[in-house]
Amino acid sequence: MDLLQNRVRRVQEKMGQEQVDLLLLGPTSNLFYLTGLTTVADERLQLGVVSAQGGVHLLLPEMYRNIAEGPQAFWELSTWQDGENLSGKLQGLLGRPPKVAIDETMRAEHLMLLLPHLQGAQLVPASQVIQECRIYKDALEVQAIREACALVDQVVLDVIPLMREGMTEVQLAWQLERLCREHGAQGPSFHPIVGFGPGGADPHHDAGDIPLERNQMVVMDFGAKWNHYCSDITRTVCFGSATEEMRKVYNLVLQANRAAFQAAKVGVPCEAVDAAARKVITDGGYGPYFVHRTGHGLGLDIHEEAYIVQGSTRPLAKGMVFSVEPGIYLPGRFGVRIEDLAAMGDHQAECLNNCPRELVETDRL
Amino acid sequence: MDLLQNRVRRVQEKMGQEQVDLLLLGPTSNLFYLTGLTTVADERLQLGVVSAQGGVHLLLPEMYRNIAEGPQAFWELSTWQDGENLSGKLQGLLGRPPKVAIDETMRAEHLMLLLPHLQGAQLVPASQVIQECRIYKDALEVQAIREACALVDQVVLDVIPLMREGMTEVQLAWQLERLCREHGAQGPSFHPIVGFGPGGADPHHDAGDIPLERNQMVVMDFGAKWNHYCSDITRTVCFGSATEEMRKVYNLVLQANRAAFQAAKVGVPCEAVDAAARKVITDGGYGPYFVHRTGHGLGLDIHEEAYIVQGSTRPLAKGMVFSVEPGIYLPGRFGVRIEDLAAMGDHQAECLNNCPRELVETDRL
Repeated sequence: MDLLQNRVRRVQEKMGQEQVDLLLLGPTSNLFYLTGLTTVADERLQLGVVSAQGGVHLLLPEMYRNIAEGPQAFWELSTWQDGENLSGKLQGLLGRPPKVAIDETMRAEHLMLLLPHLQGAQLVPASQVIQECRIYKDALEVQAIREACALVDQVVLDVIPLMREGMTEVQLAWQLERLCREHGAQGPSFHPIVGFGPGGADPHHDAGDIPLERNQMVVMDFGAKWNHYCSDITRTVCFGSATEEMRKVYNLVLQANRAAFQAAKVGVPCEAVDAAARKVITDGGYGPYFVHRTGHGLGLDIHEEAYIVQGSTRPLAKGMVFSVEPGIYLPGRFGVRIEDLAAMGDHQAECLNNCPRELVETDRL
Repeated sequence: MDLLQNRVRRVQEKMGQEQVDLLLLGPTSNLFYLTGLTTVADERLQLGVVSAQGGVHLLLPEMYRNIAEGPQAFWELSTWQDGENLSGKLQGLLGRPPKVAIDETMRAEHLMLLLPHLQGAQLVPASQVIQECRIYKDALEVQAIREACALVDQVVLDVIPLMREGMTEVQLAWQLERLCREHGAQGPSFHPIVGFGPGGADPHHDAGDIPLERNQMVVMDFGAKWNHYCSDITRTVCFGSATEEMRKVYNLVLQANRAAFQAAKVGVPCEAVDAAARKVITDGGYGPYFVHRTGHGLGLDIHEEAYIVQGSTRPLAKGMVFSVEPGIYLPGRFGVRIEDLAAMGDHQAECLNNCPRELVETDRL
């Protein structure tokens, strides 16, 4: 429990620095981060109220009383009944604070319930006060992500023998989801991206009913949740035999991936990691075809701060976990992306993925 | 396209009646209902603006231009670029309307972007103007739900032979999800509920690592999405042989289910269907153990208006689709729920599920 209360204290310190009086959370990863509670987010109001000077108060539907009270509860708890008018309870909880941080993914209908009690308040996004804590993972958080990575590493090995001529992108995506779940994942960390040939040249391709042909490059980008934390991996496999150009592009992306890991040292700005990967691809003549940032932070959410992108001067520090995913996309032809997760240690980045990242050509297996 | 434009016109009529000037939608089932567009809901603002007097305007990230323009577009389209300040575009789009309906499940961060342009406006939930259309499904919508029901009917038949002593609730829930997907579902319509023995006595039991024992009642409540529409079914199976009490309770719930269908005639109020099911269970002596409403509307969302609940005087009418799911829950012992979907025709309810609803005892198979 000290772990959670320490997180609350760090958030409250940040609130003090930013002169934020109240932090209002919905049933999101932010509330889980501070309380460890998991509830079902639906139309019923669930509210976490963190006060800069005081403590934490939870206002939950009566049906959650059992899981929200007990020895672990360092918060005050109020509950409400279906059909109850919440105005009085909200008035008592909120007061008339001048500056309030609002959970970004709270439902609009819940913010609408709060607004009459926040007249005149300055509203800011909750990330201003909570992301500065969530960016830096502790050893248990890194371990959960490491295990989520080991799971998807195994799925990559398992899925390659299942690739068949004529199977569709949707079918291959489903095999990825199935294997993750059969290896014990809580669920996917996002909807898998599978692109065959030209489909792989669209970075966020939506898997469709396109059949797999021989000698196509296959981009598979997926992740699994393990103990609430996300993994995220991309591997590009040649179904059949690769052309010289495919091999050349693949190896350039692989060098870019490795260069990013080499560059990721404590104290170096995020943008330097992006620059290291981009330089390899630009020097190789494919700069215009690397059309996205090199990576994103992840943890409880699949995309969170810090982003590995030009312009981000935030220095890398112990506990930061992020993706390294350079790619080259040749429109109408094929794409290659190779993604691993990096966890910053005392000095440098640890690569959390251990499945092979050299080009697999299925004809050579 | 006429279909979608007709829906917009009906919503605009309702806006006129309710004196709502603007309806503001996020990337939700409401936006899909009016435009047919499917996008990924994330941190980027996606806004549908329906004006009571004018037309529809979409403000989308540039990455959606391809899918949002073309011959099907009866709306005006604006796009925005990553990093752009949206204040000017929002000011132009919104004006200073006196009364605005807000999509309930829009993200709070997006409503926060809109609020500076809605100073002084009265905000109301979007359901006030759009649910009155969505409640009444047309023939194509009912057909999609009918097909989603046929899919889960088959899954019930497929899963029973897979039940094994010692398997956990989580494992059985995963088999339900797997079978739905292998039969072509787009995905689950909600997280499956599986409860063994005492777990089944909690209506919204969260499947856990509890092993299946012989002669336990097994409650399975799940659904599949098909062509964007939801199904929702519950079957209770005895793994092994049932006691006399289990059979008695089961048959009472089955009679209540059938009585609800008998009562569901056009013009009858929703609450009369609830009362018909409840009377059977109350007369049988188990009234206090039927602890929830009899059903809920469903369509694009798994829970939507109209609810089959005491106090709802809304008359049943052609095109309404709802669940009929009476249950008896004996705390610490077992539960029984039997759920089918009903679609109102010209005169009475059609039952959309066709898999057997008599008690299955696996020892007798």
